[in-house]
Amino acid sequence: MTEISLNLATTRGQWGFAEAVEGCLRHGITAISPWRDQIAAIGLDEAARIVRDNKLRVTGVCRGGMFPAETAEGRQKAIDDNLRAIDEAAALNADCLVLVVGGLPGSSKDLPGARRMVADGIAAMLPHAKASGVKIAIEPLHPMYAADRACVNTIDQALDICETLGETVGVAIDVYHVWWDPNLERAIQRAGRMKRIFAHHICDWLVPTRDMLNDRGMMGDGVIDLKSIRAMIEAAGYHGPQEVEIFSTENWWKRPGDEVLEVIKDRVATVC
Amino acid sequence: MTEISLNLATTRGQWGFAEAVEGCLRHGITAISPWRDQIAAIGLDEAARIVRDNKLRVTGVCRGGMFPAETAEGRQKAIDDNLRAIDEAAALNADCLVLVVGGLPGSSKDLPGARRMVADGIAAMLPHAKASGVKIAIEPLHPMYAADRACVNTIDQALDICETLGETVGVAIDVYHVWWDPNLERAIQRAGRMKRIFAHHICDWLVPTRDMLNDRGMMGDGVIDLKSIRAMIEAAGYHGPQEVEIFSTENWWKRPGDEVLEVIKDRVATVC
Repeated sequence: MTEISLNLATTRGQWGFAEAVEGCLRHGITAISPWRDQIAAIGLDEAARIVRDNKLRVTGVCRGGMFPAETAEGRQKAIDDNLRAIDEAAALNADCLVLVVGGLPGSSKDLPGARRMVADGIAAMLPHAKASGVKIAIEPLHPMYAADRACVNTIDQALDICETLGETVGVAIDVYHVWWDPNLERAIQRAGRMKRIFAHHICDWLVPTRDMLNDRGMMGDGVIDLKSIRAMIEAAGYHGPQEVEIFSTENWWKRPGDEVLEVIKDRVATVC
Repeated sequence: MTEISLNLATTRGQWGFAEAVEGCLRHGITAISPWRDQIAAIGLDEAARIVRDNKLRVTGVCRGGMFPAETAEGRQKAIDDNLRAIDEAAALNADCLVLVVGGLPGSSKDLPGARRMVADGIAAMLPHAKASGVKIAIEPLHPMYAADRACVNTIDQALDICETLGETVGVAIDVYHVWWDPNLERAIQRAGRMKRIFAHHICDWLVPTRDMLNDRGMMGDGVIDLKSIRAMIEAAGYHGPQEVEIFSTENWWKRPGDEVLEVIKDRVATVC
């Protein structure tokens, strides 16, 4: 059985950083992926102490990115924020800093232009990331987020950017965003050949999906063939934890955290 | 200025087939694309008479498809329905029969399998389509519909199917479904080289999108760079009408049909 990492968004409704770690340890889960607001709430030093003292693996810090902006000043502000995110990822010894790259800036309709801003933004943060020993994972987001969250929408598109930026820039593959891609297997194979798979996120796609952002499903409750995708990812050379990331305002965020972790362990053992 | 075709879904909330045609003629619009339930409601013979008497161009009949099914019997039933759709498209002398190909059948998670069922289904209907002089237009749908409406989600994926089936199978390019595609321009160029662009549908992508099915925007109200996409399509050799197809439960379906047509004419003249 592959290792589980808990993305702390999954228990956002129930637990802060410290409570989530305590919950994970109760359930034998020793890998996490926190969000920056959760780190800020407890303080970076304390978060780092908890990680160190409990020998936790941090599979990612969520998130950097959001590069496109209408003005040069706005773009620089985004880069500055990403430099701070690098410091946080370094302090937690995270496998990578995950990027949600951002969508169209302001009232722009220039998608190719936004995409250039993303590549330029990552290039600008890269020297500090390298100096800090932090890998950058571009997370391609589902095309339904192209306008407002991320204009990088397929693994192949992300890998095209990675190729120009070198071996410390890779991809975070989240099944929710990529499961539909007719080119999925070939893209994962390409990522494997490039040695750029830095994270594997799981959840499920519900039918119907009632909210475009916060109605993700528990593994097994939707239509994604999780075992097949995991097999592709392992065949491509990534054997790290499966990171469970579920945004679920109306369901999983309302249940007791321990119940959520029990279900996660059961589902990872049976359907992932 | 390019010609406008009214997809009759756009005035579904206000008008049936005959009323929509009367509305179009009042506004100088002489091309339509009806849905099969709208044809059935007035009767195929009467619909064909209205088209003939008014010398209307029918840019498409919506829709065939929905091929995947759990059983061979279910798949045959879908094919039989598509044969009837071909007869309707032929009776209206339509430019093409538009296909929404269908998603995952039943509780299946086998997306590659569903995609094979689609290719097999189109192949099965093709002899009758050819004998009837009806072109088939595969409409790639946005990836957010991959599970429940259409497992063909990019122009390139549709063209791969077209290539195996010959020159009477092409694509209907709807900006709503494809605007995000990082490979969009190359895919449209490929479709042009293959001479397989059979229709061009327009509307807009709203931010935020409040409903995944019925919250499409009027051209100009969203983020899609409509002029750029039209330029790609014309450069690829398609100069047919821009077919306006807006599903909008909460806005455009509630307004007087004549107001909707006025806005459409204005927007096509200014932002498309």
